[in-house]
Amino acid sequence: MFNNICIIGCGLIGSSILRAVEEKKLASKINVFDKSSRVNDYLKKNFSVSLYNNISDAVKNSDLTIIASPLSSYKEILLSIKSGLKKNSILTDTGSAKKEINKIINNLNLDNINWIASHPIAGTEYSGPESGFSNLFENRWCILSSGKRVSKDKINELQEFWSKLGSKTKLMSFEDHDYVLSLTSHLPHAVAYSIVKTAINNEDKFKNDIIQYSAGGLRDFTRIAASDPLMWKDIFIDNSDNILKVLDSYSKNLDEIKNAIKKKDSNKLLEIFSSTKKVRKEIIRAGQDTKEPDFGRK
Amino acid sequence: MFNNICIIGCGLIGSSILRAVEEKKLASKINVFDKSSRVNDYLKKNFSVSLYNNISDAVKNSDLTIIASPLSSYKEILLSIKSGLKKNSILTDTGSAKKEINKIINNLNLDNINWIASHPIAGTEYSGPESGFSNLFENRWCILSSGKRVSKDKINELQEFWSKLGSKTKLMSFEDHDYVLSLTSHLPHAVAYSIVKTAINNEDKFKNDIIQYSAGGLRDFTRIAASDPLMWKDIFIDNSDNILKVLDSYSKNLDEIKNAIKKKDSNKLLEIFSSTKKVRKEIIRAGQDTKEPDFGRK
Repeated sequence: MFNNICIIGCGLIGSSILRAVEEKKLASKINVFDKSSRVNDYLKKNFSVSLYNNISDAVKNSDLTIIASPLSSYKEILLSIKSGLKKNSILTDTGSAKKEINKIINNLNLDNINWIASHPIAGTEYSGPESGFSNLFENRWCILSSGKRVSKDKINELQEFWSKLGSKTKLMSFEDHDYVLSLTSHLPHAVAYSIVKTAINNEDKFKNDIIQYSAGGLRDFTRIAASDPLMWKDIFIDNSDNILKVLDSYSKNLDEIKNAIKKKDSNKLLEIFSSTKKVRKEIIRAGQDTKEPDFGRK
Repeated sequence: MFNNICIIGCGLIGSSILRAVEEKKLASKINVFDKSSRVNDYLKKNFSVSLYNNISDAVKNSDLTIIASPLSSYKEILLSIKSGLKKNSILTDTGSAKKEINKIINNLNLDNINWIASHPIAGTEYSGPESGFSNLFENRWCILSSGKRVSKDKINELQEFWSKLGSKTKLMSFEDHDYVLSLTSHLPHAVAYSIVKTAINNEDKFKNDIIQYSAGGLRDFTRIAASDPLMWKDIFIDNSDNILKVLDSYSKNLDEIKNAIKKKDSNKLLEIFSSTKKVRKEIIRAGQDTKEPDFGRK
């Protein structure tokens, strides 16, 4: 599909793209740059890719360059590859926040480069190239946000790439992406970290019991709260405006529940709990549910 | 195992017990009382149990009486069965909060009745007798709390009953149970309701997007927030002291994250996110994890 693809950063996401591109033969040549020698050793042993020590050499002939490293590393990466990027090629990424990154790229005035951000909504709680697998993106959404002056052809090309990896794609503005994801993903993560911290800050007396009976809801929060700390630190900083906004309205909703509990107001509690039950049905209707019968049990 | 078992309330939990008792032949006779005619019609069609219109008749010859109805219905039930309970029989329940119920039972001064509370940590987001299944309790914990003057033999008998249903049992005081569960189950539920409410209270413009991309974390909260409203209203009222206490320390932890985001304090965020990652390992070590690879994706 592409003559040459370059992947920058080869952890869970980058290595999953690598595996899928190899398996589905989507490129004649795959270049990889990763600053970690441990990652390079692993790749050397397990893949037939071209590894580069110099990042600007890695992107030189690439028709599609994919940044799959933490958001906080983008600036340095972009400055290093800026002059090396192939004219008329596509530059994309896999990050979970978009607006700030887009600002950085706009300020670089990349000429004749088609910047189209990608956010594959896929991942696991594990990190590193050993954790990747080729069908990670299957049946997942991938949200694309197109930079200025990008032709429709190039957007189609990138959409087709993600489709071949098994994903459903959707175009969204950088701003809308960040707002929607602050609600569907970033808020849940902030909450999960707080809840797990509350449970473990607890006196030692009950620590074992809390771990033991975690199946009642806590367990599944610990899974979210085990996501890569570095990646999430970057997301919270990049998308801070939206996250603080939704955290405020979240706190108001929590206070409403708190007050109803304090007043032992059965009707109010019933009203709140009944209203949230409906959303579940909409999610099932939208085909966004999974079959696991094991989450959030009483 | 018992000559006669009586189940009061035959929804998800009660009907799962019924199915398991039938399947494993743990009683010669099973009596059921449920105040809903719809439930009685369903049971009549699908099971060979003795259905009663009069609750005190239902318990009369029962060696094990199990209350599997919402917490708020206990008082009325207990007053109705009080004088009918068989001498030296076991009285248990399946509720998620214990301290208040135990107070009610102590005040009733039940003579020669062995009151041992049960809390099977099992369930699904579905309600009603159609949703029950016989292996709901398999590999689940069931926490028992014994009332005053109950012989060890009777506790053993009830432990054996739950073991035959596939559960691991643990003895805990009424107070410890309520505190531990406020952290592992009740807090996660309060949080899930708030988060789903925050997401759906949102302007209509993004409603479809939010449902569509809910796999990034939100989806799994909607599953918790779809649990039976009536049951959860009762739990929040019965265990209000503990829940308010843990909600306060939770809010403090959330504020810590909020402040770190406001200040764009990378180190603080990294510290918080790294500390919660460890708990996950302990949960996996405790055998409390499940294999689903699909929860809480970024």
